Amino acid sequence: MSHDYNKEAMELHALHHGKIETKVKVPMENRDDLSRAYTPGIAEISREIGRDPSLAREYTIKRNTVAIVSDGSAILGLGNLGALAAIPVMEGKAAILKSFAGVDAFPICLDTQDTEEIIKAVKQIAPVFGAVNLEDIQAPKCFEIEERLRKELSIPVMHDDQWGTATVVLAGIINALKVTGREGKDIKIVVNGVGAAGVSTSRLLLAYGFLNILFCDSKGIIHAGRADLTKEKQELLKASVANASEGQLADAVKDADIFVGVSKAGALTSEMVATMRKDPIVFALANPIPEIMPDVAREAGVAVIATGRSDFPNQLNNSLIFPGLFKGALAKGIKQFEITTFTKAALALAGHVKNPDQENILPTMFDKELVDVIASTVE
Amino acid sequence: MSHDYNKEAMELHALHHGKIETKVKVPMENRDDLSRAYTPGIAEISREIGRDPSLAREYTIKRNTVAIVSDGSAILGLGNLGALAAIPVMEGKAAILKSFAGVDAFPICLDTQDTEEIIKAVKQIAPVFGAVNLEDIQAPKCFEIEERLRKELSIPVMHDDQWGTATVVLAGIINALKVTGREGKDIKIVVNGVGAAGVSTSRLLLAYGFLNILFCDSKGIIHAGRADLTKEKQELLKASVANASEGQLADAVKDADIFVGVSKAGALTSEMVATMRKDPIVFALANPIPEIMPDVAREAGVAVIATGRSDFPNQLNNSLIFPGLFKGALAKGIKQFEITTFTKAALALAGHVKNPDQENILPTMFDKELVDVIASTVE
Repeated sequence: MSHDYNKEAMELHALHHGKIETKVKVPMENRDDLSRAYTPGIAEISREIGRDPSLAREYTIKRNTVAIVSDGSAILGLGNLGALAAIPVMEGKAAILKSFAGVDAFPICLDTQDTEEIIKAVKQIAPVFGAVNLEDIQAPKCFEIEERLRKELSIPVMHDDQWGTATVVLAGIINALKVTGREGKDIKIVVNGVGAAGVSTSRLLLAYGFLNILFCDSKGIIHAGRADLTKEKQELLKASVANASEGQLADAVKDADIFVGVSKAGALTSEMVATMRKDPIVFALANPIPEIMPDVAREAGVAVIATGRSDFPNQLNNSLIFPGLFKGALAKGIKQFEITTFTKAALALAGHVKNPDQENILPTMFDKELVDVIASTVE
Repeated sequence: MSHDYNKEAMELHALHHGKIETKVKVPMENRDDLSRAYTPGIAEISREIGRDPSLAREYTIKRNTVAIVSDGSAILGLGNLGALAAIPVMEGKAAILKSFAGVDAFPICLDTQDTEEIIKAVKQIAPVFGAVNLEDIQAPKCFEIEERLRKELSIPVMHDDQWGTATVVLAGIINALKVTGREGKDIKIVVNGVGAAGVSTSRLLLAYGFLNILFCDSKGIIHAGRADLTKEKQELLKASVANASEGQLADAVKDADIFVGVSKAGALTSEMVATMRKDPIVFALANPIPEIMPDVAREAGVAVIATGRSDFPNQLNNSLIFPGLFKGALAKGIKQFEITTFTKAALALAGHVKNPDQENILPTMFDKELVDVIASTVE
């Protein structure tokens, strides 16, 4: 039976008015209960935290609570719909964090889209939270917001659209290489789309040691001769050893081993695939319609095709990663996420599949062991 | 058996790491569930809210969620301990809202104590919330923050330290007058302490029609000859018909029917009580030690003594009011609280006690009907 998920989602959300609620985890039945949970007993705890702020982690929800922060400027693939329209998505992330990792999370949808104001607002609301998950914030401002918050806050901050995707892609590539019998890090990769996910995926691949990467954006190959490159694109170009010169995506993919698309529907054609190396690996992550449909990709000779969709094999989904990362970060009380946090998590995610094959390069997010496998890598 | 609530509270909070958690209210077991609760189904909801922002109330937690906002500048009676130390108190409010009224609430403890920054931050985080409960914010900035937010936000905003207290005091006075057989609004009231609670309590008493009020602060009677009066104190003075002239609290209480203390321990002596009218009414609300202890008050001839403490009769507690007010405000989707919201709630609270007596002027917060009695008055 096929589903009309749009309709079913509307019905579900209208019935429950959202997806999360508050639950009280201490008794609240009588005066004695309230004297412990509220006044007068609570005064001593406030005094203690006032004396030693680190005790907030011991006595409050700070220990296990993540802020899911968005300005609604890049909601899913829908664009800039603003703070209110972001609520259902942020609630969804909160529901996943709780269901899959036991981590409490609360949506903070900001009624500002100014970089400095977002940074300031997140710093101002930070006391209650043990970590911050940035979400659906437009590139390039998402880069500065994340970078600044990591420096200026003492709780871990991660833009999941960047690092969730990056980590899952690295894990997927590691196992796709195994499946196709490739070795070594000199394989050629093309990353198409250099927005939030593209930049961080590229950064992580480079940090891991894949140095032969060509980057493409809507204007074609990113090369030194272009005058329109953002700071991030210039940085990627500098870190890659690939020989980047003027050209389009079709030129870039020639002799490539791997195509990573975080761009738009239909960007990769069968003709382009035919020019890639034998048994190419294609991650077509545009949502909801991928850069190339899996059946078309296979017919064109792709050995491993992965998408962001749940209705095809090899779904590369941030939900494989972020619940475990936040669970681990909160449990260990780490000060900040580092790029090594993500490489370690990617290796653990890849290693968790004992025998990857063409249609199963990664586990599913319903794998009960996965969250703790990822969480245990955080330090 | 007597309790060491400080110790028990510490143990409770260390065990649970806070008092509230997230609960997921939709199924999250398999891919179908996630396709409704998250992508792809969620996209349609974001699109709909993008088209018509009022639908956020239908499809998200906005409908039933209150932000409990503090800057930690006036925590309980402890003073300015900052945002982290405020978390246990704000969690306590959230736990009370959920347990008593089924209203979801989340603590927002702000790492700023600047009036303009607080106003801005609350406006920026408002999209997710259906109402705002300001809490433990110093006077006089709490007045401007509340006033501005009421004007600049389209969701109801209430500083509970002001209006929760004011409403309970008005209700208590209404019933204490019945108990002592008084009638008419020309009775003489002295309000001692003109901070957050004192100002709003006075405003509400004046709005209700008690016009013969003398106000005292730490420097004595507030009168027109003083050059140090805040905007709020000048406004109260102007609205009262009492003849205010230079003097101390001892002068003010002479021939008073009612003493309302929101000041400090021991402010009211037996000697002062002896100068009040026959069968005086004393609300000694300083916490944890009242302006006069109940046994001392009785011995001095007080007819009705109320305090803020749960270990004496007649506890005047904000928790009698704010759960019902927020429940009603969210259910009705009102735009803003008005002063009439509080007079109506006070009348309902007083009226809910069929036969008030000296030791039972108001119901307890554990009265199961109370929340809906209060909620039904909100419109």
